[in-house]
Amino acid sequence: MKSNNTKVSNAIIRRLPRYRRYLNELRKQGVKKISSNELSELIGYTASQIRQDLNTFGGFGQQGYGYSVDSLFHEINKILGLDREYKTIVVGIGNLGQAITNYTYYYKIGFNIVGLFDVNPKLVGLSINDVLVRDFSEMSDFVKENDIDIAIICVNRENAQKVTDVLVDAGIEGIWNFAPVDLNVPNDVAVENVHLSDSLHTLSFLIRSNELEDAEK
Amino acid sequence: MKSNNTKVSNAIIRRLPRYRRYLNELRKQGVKKISSNELSELIGYTASQIRQDLNTFGGFGQQGYGYSVDSLFHEINKILGLDREYKTIVVGIGNLGQAITNYTYYYKIGFNIVGLFDVNPKLVGLSINDVLVRDFSEMSDFVKENDIDIAIICVNRENAQKVTDVLVDAGIEGIWNFAPVDLNVPNDVAVENVHLSDSLHTLSFLIRSNELEDAEK
Repeated sequence: MKSNNTKVSNAIIRRLPRYRRYLNELRKQGVKKISSNELSELIGYTASQIRQDLNTFGGFGQQGYGYSVDSLFHEINKILGLDREYKTIVVGIGNLGQAITNYTYYYKIGFNIVGLFDVNPKLVGLSINDVLVRDFSEMSDFVKENDIDIAIICVNRENAQKVTDVLVDAGIEGIWNFAPVDLNVPNDVAVENVHLSDSLHTLSFLIRSNELEDAEK
Repeated sequence: MKSNNTKVSNAIIRRLPRYRRYLNELRKQGVKKISSNELSELIGYTASQIRQDLNTFGGFGQQGYGYSVDSLFHEINKILGLDREYKTIVVGIGNLGQAITNYTYYYKIGFNIVGLFDVNPKLVGLSINDVLVRDFSEMSDFVKENDIDIAIICVNRENAQKVTDVLVDAGIEGIWNFAPVDLNVPNDVAVENVHLSDSLHTLSFLIRSNELEDAEK
């Protein structure tokens, strides 16, 4: 199973968190087992797609029984690396950085924010959820000394790569990037982008497409 | 060209905002023209992919000359529906809602936030960037009376569909959804999701994959 995990396609990676979200919902509703057909109706992927996806990871279903919601949920959690905790810092504590800090704090599933960094002297020294905002110059040592796993980058476009270079040198494993820029990192550093402006532009594209369709009717 | 627009694949829609981002960067650097090969090196898609994508929309390049950065940028802006303004409201003015409100305000490219809504009496009556937070009960009339185009949903999972139903009834055209749930809407309402938790889980998956690869070495 190990070697499979490292080779799954980008498309499956995108679907797994969605499976997890629905299974978590089912668990909360007290549902014990579910067939791929029922999952299909819920999630919107075809039943054969679902069986194929879950087979990639070893297949947890039993013919004629379906999937145990609880064990499938925990298996997917493991595959997603959610069976451990991640020491996390946030870099750039402006509006978005503060919101993401709070979001991650309240979300509480293993992404523990243990450090906050900014260059703004008005922010340095403040605390958010009992975590101190430190000066950016202390970040590199902090990452090394505390074995930080993940950095959440909420700085502006101009500074994102510079911040990234320092993080990579300090041994960061993963970056959750909110800066509207694509970062250069070595292969062994994971980057997941949340490009908010790209997402907003996708929305305006879809609205325009609907309007053009209406106009053609 | 009209009918093409309404049928482009989901994959191209995802790439267009990225083209726009890089072209905007080039414009700021004063670059006047660029070949598909140069764009390829910058963006990471193959040159033939780029030519094919841009051809879908009518093709703006000239053989042997390449693309005019400025006119390609403006064409893509038009295709993305960014040649107009959108009247936008935000629903749910907690931490994330406030951050997204500020983000969209400072971003300033045609997504004008004209209304904010919440159920929390501590928030109703406050202002953010001179826009008043109103009670949720006023939202439906506000959307109708002001011809609101887009709603940004920052409420919790439990309330997101209820909010959506009210917005759809009031005639909303597009929803930028930050609630960790998939919304049911009619076909003529555009929805773009920012599922932050899915994104974070993708990151942990990638980190775990890297660690497994390391362990195998």
